[in-house]
Amino acid sequence: MARVDLGPMNGISSATVTSVTAELLGQGLISELPPETIRSGGRGRPKTLIQLNPDAAFVICVKVSINEIQIVVGDFTGQIRHSMHHPLTTLTLTLDELCAVLEEKIEAIRADVCHTFQHLAGICLAVQGVVSPNSGLIIWSPALGFRNAPISERLATAFGCPVLLENDANCIARALTSHPEYAAYPNLIVIMLGYGIGMSVLIDGKPFLGTNGSAAEFGHTKYEPGGALCACGRRGCIEAYASDYALYREARAMLTLPPGDSAHPSDAQMQALNQLAIAGDPVASQIYSKAGRALGYGIANVLALFNPDLVLITGSGVRGFEAMRPSMEEAIDEALVEELIGPSRLIASPWDRDMTFLGGIAMTLHATDLQTLASCSSCGSGDS
Amino acid sequence: MARVDLGPMNGISSATVTSVTAELLGQGLISELPPETIRSGGRGRPKTLIQLNPDAAFVICVKVSINEIQIVVGDFTGQIRHSMHHPLTTLTLTLDELCAVLEEKIEAIRADVCHTFQHLAGICLAVQGVVSPNSGLIIWSPALGFRNAPISERLATAFGCPVLLENDANCIARALTSHPEYAAYPNLIVIMLGYGIGMSVLIDGKPFLGTNGSAAEFGHTKYEPGGALCACGRRGCIEAYASDYALYREARAMLTLPPGDSAHPSDAQMQALNQLAIAGDPVASQIYSKAGRALGYGIANVLALFNPDLVLITGSGVRGFEAMRPSMEEAIDEALVEELIGPSRLIASPWDRDMTFLGGIAMTLHATDLQTLASCSSCGSGDS
Repeated sequence: MARVDLGPMNGISSATVTSVTAELLGQGLISELPPETIRSGGRGRPKTLIQLNPDAAFVICVKVSINEIQIVVGDFTGQIRHSMHHPLTTLTLTLDELCAVLEEKIEAIRADVCHTFQHLAGICLAVQGVVSPNSGLIIWSPALGFRNAPISERLATAFGCPVLLENDANCIARALTSHPEYAAYPNLIVIMLGYGIGMSVLIDGKPFLGTNGSAAEFGHTKYEPGGALCACGRRGCIEAYASDYALYREARAMLTLPPGDSAHPSDAQMQALNQLAIAGDPVASQIYSKAGRALGYGIANVLALFNPDLVLITGSGVRGFEAMRPSMEEAIDEALVEELIGPSRLIASPWDRDMTFLGGIAMTLHATDLQTLASCSSCGSGDS
Repeated sequence: MARVDLGPMNGISSATVTSVTAELLGQGLISELPPETIRSGGRGRPKTLIQLNPDAAFVICVKVSINEIQIVVGDFTGQIRHSMHHPLTTLTLTLDELCAVLEEKIEAIRADVCHTFQHLAGICLAVQGVVSPNSGLIIWSPALGFRNAPISERLATAFGCPVLLENDANCIARALTSHPEYAAYPNLIVIMLGYGIGMSVLIDGKPFLGTNGSAAEFGHTKYEPGGALCACGRRGCIEAYASDYALYREARAMLTLPPGDSAHPSDAQMQALNQLAIAGDPVASQIYSKAGRALGYGIANVLALFNPDLVLITGSGVRGFEAMRPSMEEAIDEALVEELIGPSRLIASPWDRDMTFLGGIAMTLHATDLQTLASCSSCGSGDS
């Protein structure tokens, strides 16, 4: 973007633009594009375009899910630059063991990319389950055996940078809802289908967290009392019908699926199952139809309680959603009178890549104090 | 309160207090108490206390519920000064007929009290069901046969004053939560047991309405798919188990209750039934126990989705709540793991009088522009 366009857009004078951009250039937070790339039409002198300097800072975003830790590096423009994947048995880890693993993996990736980037802006820890962003506690995660664990402060101390703890669904909602097409929907619900079932609620465009961060636990609202057994240990939760593990549990005795871990379906297994259901295999169709019915009853409760503008359904499980949709829509109509369905629209959003990281990086950069970035020592480590 | 105490409390200088109170006295919005009532300890000269002038303005608050219209007059201090009660068959009224009845009754009461008060500050219309405060529409009410009816503007035109349309549950929540004891609970849910089941959700202390005002429709969230028939026409709603009409429907074939309307239980009938259940009558106890279980499952969903600080249970039906409580608590524990129940407290708040009016009057006064009040013509009618 050219300096002359920044003034009107931000409501500041051209003199202010000149002085602010000079300061940001000096700090290395922005850079100028070579002038020959932007000459247009050949008239007048070319405008010099400026851009965020991708290498000004980086974010390390860590996703903890069942039996897997993924770590990515995001640059100052929010793009993913590196990605790593560590399978390990998460459920038996103690908090100390998890912290040790995370510290080792984060330090390794930090050392790797340290010379590319000027500063470490922060670390984002995206965790499946109930977390408290304010107090930095993992309250309860299906991936972990311990509870109420203070984790943000330990990592912040170890790496001398801010640590943002977030529910994975809130990260995905952030990535999705930053698209201009969703700006018109301030009351927005994002439902994530996958190994578990997550939800993020935006009220007036802001994530609604509840009192201690455990709001929007849609997966554990009920379809029917005494119903199917859920990973949480209770019965009848929506997740116990419509999550990957629930679909796989019903299917694996009756259908031929690719080999894999008996407790946790692999992506290949879920893809095979989704395709059977969408192709109309009678057994798979029946399983997905039941899942859709449970999902529909769950969504009906959400519509009655939140009266949102829009419900977005996404997550890796959305690849099988078309096989759930007819029974889900039928269930919503069966559950609610028209006036309570109201103006809420329901849209499935395709899942071409895991948006947890894009959202986590954006949230971390958004929370970053530029002043701190500009003044902190190279490569972000407190002692480097 | 004395002028000298108003400055520090509001962070303004004593000169400002003097000039503002002089202006308000001139407008008749406040008045001075006789000095002899406030001499304390005999030292110094007595402070002159000032108070809101109760007769400076009045609010007419109308509650529309099944087969009943109640109208009260509230004064400028928020107190109820007059109250009237009109039984009529509401379900067969057209919008025009309802407006005609309301205009006649409101005009009669306005003419009656016109000489006591200086101004009509506004009219509050509290309606059971789904309303849109912003667009002034009654979207859907169990008391009325029509839907999506624009009503606020008609009354505003007829009486030349602001008209506030509100859900009755939100009025009650406003009255309850203005008590200082609830100020510490910014995320607060109020559940109203009565002929229907209402709910009001406060997020950060503000009523949460959703996109078109139909959020918090707890009564029509589900206990079980295909369950008991609800007044809304669907099955399995919490209201179809725990509302007055649901309890009465189960009880009337098997218990001896005072005579009354066969479709709508009277207050005397509900009181008799509540007392039977609380006294341990086996049939009544079983009915209330089932109701408590449905209520508990419903509240479990609310805890999982809203993660509130506090759930207050009130309404006329709270008089039978002790007979529902044990099964309700059991159901919540059965439905949710401890981490999702979280820090939420659950308290029953006694129902000694209908708080709809106190809340409606407070909301209307709060929305009143003092400047308009001071400058408008006497008695609030546009043409008087």
